[in-house]
Amino acid sequence: MTSERKTSLSQLGEFGLIDRISQRLQGKSAVIVKGIGDDCAIYRASKDRYQIITTDALVDGVHFHLASHPPRLLGRKSLAVSLSDISAMGGTPRTVVISLGIPKSLPLTFLDHFYEGLHSLCKEFNISIAGGDTVQSPKGFWVSLTVIGEVRKDRFFTRAGAKAGHAILVTGTLGDSALGLKLLSDSSNNLKTSKANRRTLIARHQNPTPRIAFAKALARSSVRVSSMIDISDGLEQDLGHICQQSGKGADLDPDSIPTSKELNYLCKNNDLNQTSLSLTGGEDYELLFTTPAEDVKKLMKITLKVGVSVTQVGKMTSDQSTLRLLKANESPQIRKITSGFDHFR
Amino acid sequence: MTSERKTSLSQLGEFGLIDRISQRLQGKSAVIVKGIGDDCAIYRASKDRYQIITTDALVDGVHFHLASHPPRLLGRKSLAVSLSDISAMGGTPRTVVISLGIPKSLPLTFLDHFYEGLHSLCKEFNISIAGGDTVQSPKGFWVSLTVIGEVRKDRFFTRAGAKAGHAILVTGTLGDSALGLKLLSDSSNNLKTSKANRRTLIARHQNPTPRIAFAKALARSSVRVSSMIDISDGLEQDLGHICQQSGKGADLDPDSIPTSKELNYLCKNNDLNQTSLSLTGGEDYELLFTTPAEDVKKLMKITLKVGVSVTQVGKMTSDQSTLRLLKANESPQIRKITSGFDHFR
Repeated sequence: MTSERKTSLSQLGEFGLIDRISQRLQGKSAVIVKGIGDDCAIYRASKDRYQIITTDALVDGVHFHLASHPPRLLGRKSLAVSLSDISAMGGTPRTVVISLGIPKSLPLTFLDHFYEGLHSLCKEFNISIAGGDTVQSPKGFWVSLTVIGEVRKDRFFTRAGAKAGHAILVTGTLGDSALGLKLLSDSSNNLKTSKANRRTLIARHQNPTPRIAFAKALARSSVRVSSMIDISDGLEQDLGHICQQSGKGADLDPDSIPTSKELNYLCKNNDLNQTSLSLTGGEDYELLFTTPAEDVKKLMKITLKVGVSVTQVGKMTSDQSTLRLLKANESPQIRKITSGFDHFR
Repeated sequence: MTSERKTSLSQLGEFGLIDRISQRLQGKSAVIVKGIGDDCAIYRASKDRYQIITTDALVDGVHFHLASHPPRLLGRKSLAVSLSDISAMGGTPRTVVISLGIPKSLPLTFLDHFYEGLHSLCKEFNISIAGGDTVQSPKGFWVSLTVIGEVRKDRFFTRAGAKAGHAILVTGTLGDSALGLKLLSDSSNNLKTSKANRRTLIARHQNPTPRIAFAKALARSSVRVSSMIDISDGLEQDLGHICQQSGKGADLDPDSIPTSKELNYLCKNNDLNQTSLSLTGGEDYELLFTTPAEDVKKLMKITLKVGVSVTQVGKMTSDQSTLRLLKANESPQIRKITSGFDHFR
């Protein structure tokens, strides 16, 4: 069935919808350098200057839960997800506008704390709040946020460009955010954990750190970054985006995926599948990228300087749209690259 | 009662909320030239370049009604309201990003037509669609849109700057959009009108024309524009914003407010209050601005060239925050300038 014959959103799905929209909208534009289909868009602001822009929307009950997400952290996270997109293309965020859909019943203190959180993250990254819109939304709270920044004309990262043999690398640890969400949903406290572990993992979910500093350092370096994306939908799926847009495949060693000691402890004591969490857990907002193998050493020097850990988890292959999971002493699992988590299904 | 002691949104109101937010958010920023509190924000993109940005959110059931607003026109209007803001400051729109909150049940054809409408207006004004976000919104459809453009460093318009004695002018005709909305709500067809009149007025509500061309011509001219705003909330209220931010008052002649022949006909035949419609009706997206009286002649030459009618409706006074309605042969009505229509009350 072609997408033209599909008549409902749930049949088409989120990524099908994006394809459909971009087919309809993208004419040739002399201004747009990189349009729909990457973490951000890049456009020519003047002859010599490129700007980078990203917009993200978050809806109560879909992307967060008002009841369990402290408003201050929600204000920070609303911005952090966009900053993560900017960092994934090697940009520097400068200005933000933010719109809120607000139910009448929402307490004013909620908004105060939300803006306080937003403001605190702006200060950390020297971002100006230019303005926004506040509208009544009778049926639920939502946030829509646009960040504009700068990117070097001759140095930005996209999802396309990974070559067979290039190393696949990730920053930080994966799966923590998904496990934090699991802990939040575990209202009857079935999961065995310590208070400190619980706090750390929930913070990873509610208050993620965008990897701006690392991405900037990388953009300033001579390391050849052939592709980059931030991990919002999970390693497997976001690597799928790189594979699809680069026309390549990937070999991944699940045992090499970096995980936190908190996650390791919880998985061991609660019979949770560590590989599944680190491979498919979303919203870690770590960076996933590829470089020629010979640049990995140079890269590691940068990670030491910035204080962000980077781990190689696999390498790109010429086997288009195929992800192979290679575990030591096991036969490889072959997965067709899918479009993954889908809000509309 | 100070705003600090108010604890609910409905007590504080939309404009109170904006004040509260801007007090909390605005630190000193070297980048922001004009922040929260005008139609758009203006910021320094580089040493010699200013950019203009505006963001607008529209919610089903608050700003439009899905059941009666054709999706193609809704796509156009979603963008038109932001273009109107850009024009009110003398800017040129360049790039747009758009996010949609989409209920699963929404037909795909609705989205196709919505984007088609958006795209058609983009083409008319040579605006590039850089991207957006589409998210599931279980409880209702909403639109959030950000437009970025350019503005001359030495020539942009704000709400502040009107001087006593300056002429108050408006483009086009007022009250049509509010009357169009009234016709849409008149399900039992109580209002006497012709089909053509009905069509024209409803189109004024559902498919407004942003005054980009006129504003650009004005920005290029030597007419001294001391303040400008677009009429989204109604003449009385938007003039109130100019008065408040300029620290002035205004004398208005209600009989001089330009109205369309369609509106005149309907008011006459249905015992509707024409003055009330043209004075308080919102969403006409005409421009309201002030100039020194001696520049009015020069201004009128521009209006002829661009083909947009401009009418003087009053003059600014030094009587701070006081709006006087001066009808011939009637004693003046004195109105304290209010913050007007409020979504949260």
